[in-house]
Amino acid sequence: MILDKINSPDDVKKLSLLEMQNLAEEIREAIIKKVNTTGGHFGPNLGIVEATIALHYVFNSPADKIVYDVSHQCYPHKMLTGRKEGFLEPEKYSKYTGYTAPEECEHDFFKVGHTSTSVSLASGLAKARDLKGEGGNIIALIGDGSLSGGEALEGLDNAAVLGSNFIVVVNDNDQSIAENHGGLYDNLKLLRETDGKAECNFFKSLGFGYVLVKEGNNVEKLIETFKRVKDSPHPVVVHICTQKGKGCKAAEENRENFHWILPHTLDENQPAPVFEESYTSITREYILNKAKEDKTVIAINAGTPGVFGFDKEFRAQMGKQYLDVGIAEEHAVACASGIATGGAKPIFAVMSSFIQRTYDQMSQDLCLNNSPITMLVYWGGISGADATHLCTFDIPLISNIPNMVYLAPTNKEEYLKMLDWSVDQTEHPVAIRVPMCGLKSTGVEDTTDYSVLNKYKVVSKCEKVAILGLGNFLGLAHKVKEELKINATIINPVFMTGLDTELLEELKKDHSLVVTLEDGELDGGFGEKIARFYGNSDMKVLNYGAKKEFTDRIALDELYKRYHLTKEQIADEIRACIS
Amino acid sequence: MILDKINSPDDVKKLSLLEMQNLAEEIREAIIKKVNTTGGHFGPNLGIVEATIALHYVFNSPADKIVYDVSHQCYPHKMLTGRKEGFLEPEKYSKYTGYTAPEECEHDFFKVGHTSTSVSLASGLAKARDLKGEGGNIIALIGDGSLSGGEALEGLDNAAVLGSNFIVVVNDNDQSIAENHGGLYDNLKLLRETDGKAECNFFKSLGFGYVLVKEGNNVEKLIETFKRVKDSPHPVVVHICTQKGKGCKAAEENRENFHWILPHTLDENQPAPVFEESYTSITREYILNKAKEDKTVIAINAGTPGVFGFDKEFRAQMGKQYLDVGIAEEHAVACASGIATGGAKPIFAVMSSFIQRTYDQMSQDLCLNNSPITMLVYWGGISGADATHLCTFDIPLISNIPNMVYLAPTNKEEYLKMLDWSVDQTEHPVAIRVPMCGLKSTGVEDTTDYSVLNKYKVVSKCEKVAILGLGNFLGLAHKVKEELKINATIINPVFMTGLDTELLEELKKDHSLVVTLEDGELDGGFGEKIARFYGNSDMKVLNYGAKKEFTDRIALDELYKRYHLTKEQIADEIRACIS
Repeated sequence: MILDKINSPDDVKKLSLLEMQNLAEEIREAIIKKVNTTGGHFGPNLGIVEATIALHYVFNSPADKIVYDVSHQCYPHKMLTGRKEGFLEPEKYSKYTGYTAPEECEHDFFKVGHTSTSVSLASGLAKARDLKGEGGNIIALIGDGSLSGGEALEGLDNAAVLGSNFIVVVNDNDQSIAENHGGLYDNLKLLRETDGKAECNFFKSLGFGYVLVKEGNNVEKLIETFKRVKDSPHPVVVHICTQKGKGCKAAEENRENFHWILPHTLDENQPAPVFEESYTSITREYILNKAKEDKTVIAINAGTPGVFGFDKEFRAQMGKQYLDVGIAEEHAVACASGIATGGAKPIFAVMSSFIQRTYDQMSQDLCLNNSPITMLVYWGGISGADATHLCTFDIPLISNIPNMVYLAPTNKEEYLKMLDWSVDQTEHPVAIRVPMCGLKSTGVEDTTDYSVLNKYKVVSKCEKVAILGLGNFLGLAHKVKEELKINATIINPVFMTGLDTELLEELKKDHSLVVTLEDGELDGGFGEKIARFYGNSDMKVLNYGAKKEFTDRIALDELYKRYHLTKEQIADEIRACIS
Repeated sequence: MILDKINSPDDVKKLSLLEMQNLAEEIREAIIKKVNTTGGHFGPNLGIVEATIALHYVFNSPADKIVYDVSHQCYPHKMLTGRKEGFLEPEKYSKYTGYTAPEECEHDFFKVGHTSTSVSLASGLAKARDLKGEGGNIIALIGDGSLSGGEALEGLDNAAVLGSNFIVVVNDNDQSIAENHGGLYDNLKLLRETDGKAECNFFKSLGFGYVLVKEGNNVEKLIETFKRVKDSPHPVVVHICTQKGKGCKAAEENRENFHWILPHTLDENQPAPVFEESYTSITREYILNKAKEDKTVIAINAGTPGVFGFDKEFRAQMGKQYLDVGIAEEHAVACASGIATGGAKPIFAVMSSFIQRTYDQMSQDLCLNNSPITMLVYWGGISGADATHLCTFDIPLISNIPNMVYLAPTNKEEYLKMLDWSVDQTEHPVAIRVPMCGLKSTGVEDTTDYSVLNKYKVVSKCEKVAILGLGNFLGLAHKVKEELKINATIINPVFMTGLDTELLEELKKDHSLVVTLEDGELDGGFGEKIARFYGNSDMKVLNYGAKKEFTDRIALDELYKRYHLTKEQIADEIRACIS
């Protein structure tokens, strides 16, 4: 095996062309086997194998510095930079993160997981190099849908005028996670179809030099071009056309579904997936029905439709009532605000981790204008995810913006009622944190009037101790009560953006302790607002939630223990407090 | 006067070309007089007079909808849409806001003050129009430096493929607030120089139709072109070349200084400004000196150098150690992170209101990577500003991001010591909230070691009541103590991002009340963290700061009263609490 000889990029430089071609096949085979076992990013990594080999053949990492955008296409890079064991030895499959990680290796420069960051980050490396009077090439590898993000576009505009060496490799696989959206991609297509000769060239218009490598999975052609641009004294774009999912027929044919796969997706005789009703499925169904009866309803997402069940059938049924803006969350929120101002009804679905990309638009374009949009925030909560994809921060992020109404439903009926209210109302920007726990149904229609803001629900009224279980954590509140073996009051706060001061005041009469449970960061979150409210009273307050920290692939159970979020820990601390 | 006859856009349509030309002069004269009296955006409004007249002549607002970017170039629009009194009658000068405001007029669609938003917002209006099967033109007027923001670029990429009527008017006055930066502006220049014929055209590369109006202050030419693109069935860019500051010689000649002016700037025999040492001046001086002794120090800003005293002399002295990225805060933060990773020392200066534009970059590119940059946050605090430019939100925004160190200096020596520590350290992303109050000096060098995080300073130790006066509000803490006439403990917390748990624990021994004062939004801010800390104790806590709300040009005194921030109010409430 060629891979046996590869322990660092230096070893790549010793290979013949034929060996490099064989190496590509070996890497591909390892990725297919590994990712089909563990799950992970599949298509992007298979497409970028040859380019990674060629980069390490031509350039001298880490003196030359390669920055991977999203960094979900860094598996081949990891295999060539001393971390192949993580792909070849099943017992070491989980040793390395699925993204670049400077603590793992001198060939990685940044922890990266959100898209569209590589050009700006790498241009910073270039600027530092120039300030220090050093040499070396700086390379940003972007593409696979991430060109459309505002940060990437700001970065390109600025990097083009760096005035020194800077190489942007644009990995054009004619695909984002789903299909491409935006005029930029039409230009990439034109450039592909004209062998890069079309005069109207997005990159050239910004001032970049430009080279096209049409055969972006051909090591020889790539090497030839990378040699040509190496040590370029000015910024240049190398536009490479690659095959997403290359080497795996299913992935080549269905690029969207194989962008990221679950374990064993490729195994034969996989049992057909059993359909289970979920918050995702009921949202999908709700939107389809609502859109049929109201032609002004429009479902929006920013380049990740699969997460929300916005599959091809959904898109076809929705027609022009569906809008995928590509990876462009800022535009999504501002555009939704405009749609609402224009009298239509936008529903923007977004993952908690990615709503971070659009704070100013939520504040200025949306909330300052009080535009009635519905924002569905998915996956919000403590999780064992990679540090780059934590969903712990959306409550502090969203709920401190004036005018926003951020709701935390706790069961199916509540959720659907909120959704329906939100879509039709015309008063507020509303965000709903789609529950992360399994679908819970009360079987009884929710008749709450959510237009009465900041009205908490008393689930069971007792005395002494009141537990406020927010959203995902209402269930935990019940468990704590059971564990305590006392008749605690249970409250479902519903509204993360405001206080039910009347109820909180009332609790003072016969309660001495209020406990808040929230599935997210404590700092700046919901519980602290309760603590502030009671600051000037005899009421004791205990706040539970996540610590302010970036965690990286730590099991949920462990995190719960760390944050004192087990029912036993909470019950003990409540006992200590009221004894 | 022609203006006498103009009460709505309909009246503009009745004018002859000559009358419109005269109208332009009348508008210009009114703007010069008004803005020289009240202060405000000057150059941008003078440049856009003819285009505004032509837009209202050709299009039928509000059926056709014009969205103004930044909206600091909307004065002529306001004068043509029923609000001329605000520019002609001195007693009504303050009646209307300096930005578009839907509550004022049916011809305004959004409250806008941050840049780069018009294309996304307007494309939402277009989408709503299409969903509802309505007609009419949608026009976004962008330019004057705002093209480079990520939201604008995401918006253009998406708007280009709307597939229906959409008109982007690019106001190219060859200037941002300061000079232009970024490759995009080189393309605008090329287009100007080739009469719009250059094939390599940024807008065309995205898919827009394109027309150039080289004489962008010529009403006739503008009308001719707007007529041509009116009812265009597909998205089109009208690139107009205007003279920023037109009609005022000083403003034409010094476009940067006359972008926004103070009252009476144009008056003759103005006394020469007296130089006063300020936080801005000492920062400028510090950076210049530091940059001389360390060639890796680099000062960064995003298109607003004047705010930080980064004047032409500063830029010349700094040379390549100065970087203006244009309006592109996302790039600024990510690039700074890259610069720090590359071993150089970036200092990014930014206004509190604009740091909002870059949350995800602070979280992912910066703090997750723990890159040692220095971020200077200016103007943070409660103010009587327009709703679009509030600086009340930076503490909740910044301080809940893991790994960030956010410092609140209270005097000159502290500030300089923090700055010096921050620039040279290599452990943390550090933000410093540059004080808003006048420069205070202790006259004694600060010897604090700020690398010991979260160590609060006890200014005076007494018992019973402890007042934590954060940053700008340390002075208020002293005043409250004086008002109280008791020996309260005064604490300068210094660190907004963490708790000095040892000190806070210690206070429990001989204090029964802790009071926090912060110059910013209470929700998600500093005080709530203190309330949470003491939730489970007998310590009472009172938190003072701003309410979660957008305020609009409300006098500071009034806001302080509203938020119970006068020393009398606070003292009364403390007395009530400890009695």
